[in-house]
Amino acid sequence: MSLYPRPVEELIDHFARLPGIGRKGAARLVFHLLGKSDDDVRAFAEAMVAARVNTVFCRECQNLSEEELCPLCSGSGRDRATLCVVAEPRDVAAVERCREYKGLYHVLHGVISPTKQKSPDDIRLKELLERVGGGGFLEVILATNPDTDGDTTALYIARMLRPYEVKVTRLAYGLPMGGHVEYADELTILRALDGRREV
Amino acid sequence: MSLYPRPVEELIDHFARLPGIGRKGAARLVFHLLGKSDDDVRAFAEAMVAARVNTVFCRECQNLSEEELCPLCSGSGRDRATLCVVAEPRDVAAVERCREYKGLYHVLHGVISPTKQKSPDDIRLKELLERVGGGGFLEVILATNPDTDGDTTALYIARMLRPYEVKVTRLAYGLPMGGHVEYADELTILRALDGRREV
Repeated sequence: MSLYPRPVEELIDHFARLPGIGRKGAARLVFHLLGKSDDDVRAFAEAMVAARVNTVFCRECQNLSEEELCPLCSGSGRDRATLCVVAEPRDVAAVERCREYKGLYHVLHGVISPTKQKSPDDIRLKELLERVGGGGFLEVILATNPDTDGDTTALYIARMLRPYEVKVTRLAYGLPMGGHVEYADELTILRALDGRREV
Repeated sequence: MSLYPRPVEELIDHFARLPGIGRKGAARLVFHLLGKSDDDVRAFAEAMVAARVNTVFCRECQNLSEEELCPLCSGSGRDRATLCVVAEPRDVAAVERCREYKGLYHVLHGVISPTKQKSPDDIRLKELLERVGGGGFLEVILATNPDTDGDTTALYIARMLRPYEVKVTRLAYGLPMGGHVEYADELTILRALDGRREV
């Protein structure tokens, strides 16, 4: 016999599949939800489906977007000659939070990783090369994480961009080694932007 | 401008309201979900509503149940003269995992806590007194947590049960199995000394 009613066990299973959440943590979250009203829980469930179904990838920068073209790509007031290449949408959010960078972005949705069997074809690199090939960019800033896979990806992209007439830079190692762009504080990101160097 | 598309922000808000999950942790969970298929996300959302809507409290023990009477209360093979009183459904699960206790349970859904403004009326104590008053129980084991609120609740219940002809016991205090005397706090060692037994 299972320890909780079947629907409760099933919801615990779903939560336990999320990264960083074990079965005991999942049970704690589920019991919290069971203490909420039907409406609250339905709203959560609907938000979950809505986030998945109503979100697409921006045609240009590949970031998550409600529209075919995201607000950053379609909006005015951005420097369209500078492109910041990041691994994940949350890295765009991290760079935007420092309110200093005014260029455009390109989201790779992953990094090249021999250990995780991620090849250049598994990330949105083709789209990046097409964008840069289309002209108009003066500088491409490689803002992948300062770890092995992030460095590998940056070096690989730098090599692929060599044929194009564009300056390629890498965020400075103001970022703590082994850290994540996502968790860096604004000042660290600012320093890293300031100290970027040509690859 | 928000950093993520609106439906994504809304889902992050929902996750961030769960206990022990901050906004960055919530964003990480949401991006994990956005990497899943529509079907997977829908299944999660449906499980969430199902757990809330298809779960009731057992008429007898107040534990979570799919039926009006939970499997433990309706089933045979349990000792119906012994009642174990716990604070939460997950405590039932914890006691059941040791496969030794064969009696019935009563889930209080909380503890009496002056600091958290939880009075005896806020937990399912009335239901417990009715059950014990109905007769048939020889022993009530108070298995609330060994902390201030858990002790307060146990003492209060013990006093309320005095008019009934039933033995009232409390889980033993002492060193946790596999623990070290060296690392035990003073209060635990004091309680373990108090409760020492002849070998």
